[in-house]
Amino acid sequence: MAAARFALLITPAESTDEERADFSDSFRRIDPSAPALSVGELSTQRGDGIFESIGVIDGHAQEVEPHVQRLAHSAALCDLPEPHREQWRQAVALAAAECGPGEWVIKLILSRGVDHGPAPTAWVTAAPAADFAAARTEGIRVVTLDRGYDSGAAERSPWLLLGAKTLSYAVNMAALREAHLRGADDAIFVTTDGVVLEAPTASLILRCGDRFVTPAPHGGILQGTTQISLFAHLEAQGYATEYATVPTADLATADQAWLLSSVRLAAPITAIDGVGLAVDHAFTDGLNAYLLSARD
Amino acid sequence: MAAARFALLITPAESTDEERADFSDSFRRIDPSAPALSVGELSTQRGDGIFESIGVIDGHAQEVEPHVQRLAHSAALCDLPEPHREQWRQAVALAAAECGPGEWVIKLILSRGVDHGPAPTAWVTAAPAADFAAARTEGIRVVTLDRGYDSGAAERSPWLLLGAKTLSYAVNMAALREAHLRGADDAIFVTTDGVVLEAPTASLILRCGDRFVTPAPHGGILQGTTQISLFAHLEAQGYATEYATVPTADLATADQAWLLSSVRLAAPITAIDGVGLAVDHAFTDGLNAYLLSARD
Repeated sequence: MAAARFALLITPAESTDEERADFSDSFRRIDPSAPALSVGELSTQRGDGIFESIGVIDGHAQEVEPHVQRLAHSAALCDLPEPHREQWRQAVALAAAECGPGEWVIKLILSRGVDHGPAPTAWVTAAPAADFAAARTEGIRVVTLDRGYDSGAAERSPWLLLGAKTLSYAVNMAALREAHLRGADDAIFVTTDGVVLEAPTASLILRCGDRFVTPAPHGGILQGTTQISLFAHLEAQGYATEYATVPTADLATADQAWLLSSVRLAAPITAIDGVGLAVDHAFTDGLNAYLLSARD
Repeated sequence: MAAARFALLITPAESTDEERADFSDSFRRIDPSAPALSVGELSTQRGDGIFESIGVIDGHAQEVEPHVQRLAHSAALCDLPEPHREQWRQAVALAAAECGPGEWVIKLILSRGVDHGPAPTAWVTAAPAADFAAARTEGIRVVTLDRGYDSGAAERSPWLLLGAKTLSYAVNMAALREAHLRGADDAIFVTTDGVVLEAPTASLILRCGDRFVTPAPHGGILQGTTQISLFAHLEAQGYATEYATVPTADLATADQAWLLSSVRLAAPITAIDGVGLAVDHAFTDGLNAYLLSARD
């Protein structure tokens, strides 16, 4: 995405019981390129916080409620204070009102706060989205990368924070660099015991005949808001959808595959580890037309 | 540690070939509690950067060179531009000069910079250290926690960034919270195949008779500067030291054990997973007396 054009610092509500019609006095608009955070911020020192990225189409923020719910889910996994959902909804509405025509992205960030500080730090930004037309129409090449974990790690060891969307994304970024080194555009993480997980910043869906499959969101996957929305759309069209344990070997037998995320939307996969995969361009265009329509 | 009392923003040297006697014009002193970083900072958005923590005793920064070397090592693992070592040495010297008597901590942070920005962002801070007298003298209780990885993961999958000291420390912090939930003070990470690694923010050494053992720093361990320094000290005193693959079961047979880090120094372990361990207080006092002496 481009640099943010809008940013709002949020003083998080102290209690989720607080019933307020208007949280505007808890927001402070700031220059997104000006200094705003102190060096004591635990987000910068330890990636200690959580985030969400929301797509915006012509000023309409997509799927706000699932994103706010997922922020609360991540907060619970990370022992952060529960976000006040109405406060975040109002912050997103203010940010969305600042987005121009076309595609934008709103980011929500909730940090543990300043070291030894009294409260979390929170902010939202809005920025024009990058142009993902090529990814959506021509598709992307992906490679599989070992995530290092076995498929039981998330359930066994919740302190690994698998399933939380934390600010500690250095490994996700390193995986994307590794994919680029291998001549690909993106990566699909797999477990050490041969189970497909997700992409570093996207969900995966596979098409097998008229059935659409995504890796089951236990086992350390961050369930994708875009994937959930697309499954509902496919079901309404009469397709079968399924959450399943997907063996890595099944990647080779899928008829088609896509990476799904809130801003890039549906990117058809043209090759996995160098082996070509068919792309149904008309069908994919239909998926993206749906994803570009106003969704709540 | 307490809030930082001193902070210096650094404009990183563009090339490590640059031979400059004086980097002072690349430093800008800032108020450590004032806004200094923009919301576009990738350290805050993705924990995308690296750091070091250096102990300071009565104004003397300990082991500066090993820390600067390790910063460079982490930068290489994370595909960050190579730090100019002399520039960082000078920044540390300025920070050390601001530290009062007693124990302080200097942090070095090198972030990937602002999203789509031209260069990394870098800064150092200095803060009074927390009082670790109780940990050093009375000791700490630890629990073992699964790190989720097997002992081959680091070598097999370098994008997992094991061995780099990144800002993505959310899991390390979650492991400490889990340890506290279990009534302990700290944790020891172990692999899924039963090999001892390290603590979330410290190295482990074990004493078996007159031999001192630490987990070998391949396999995803961040080699501890304090551990290296202490091994040299022990060797000079005639003790045998060893880097070894330590099976988890060996924790039960060690005569003594310590967690070592740059600021807390040597914290004797009084119990592992609830099983008591002897502490030689006089010997431990000797280790900390060495670690509190000026070291380079």
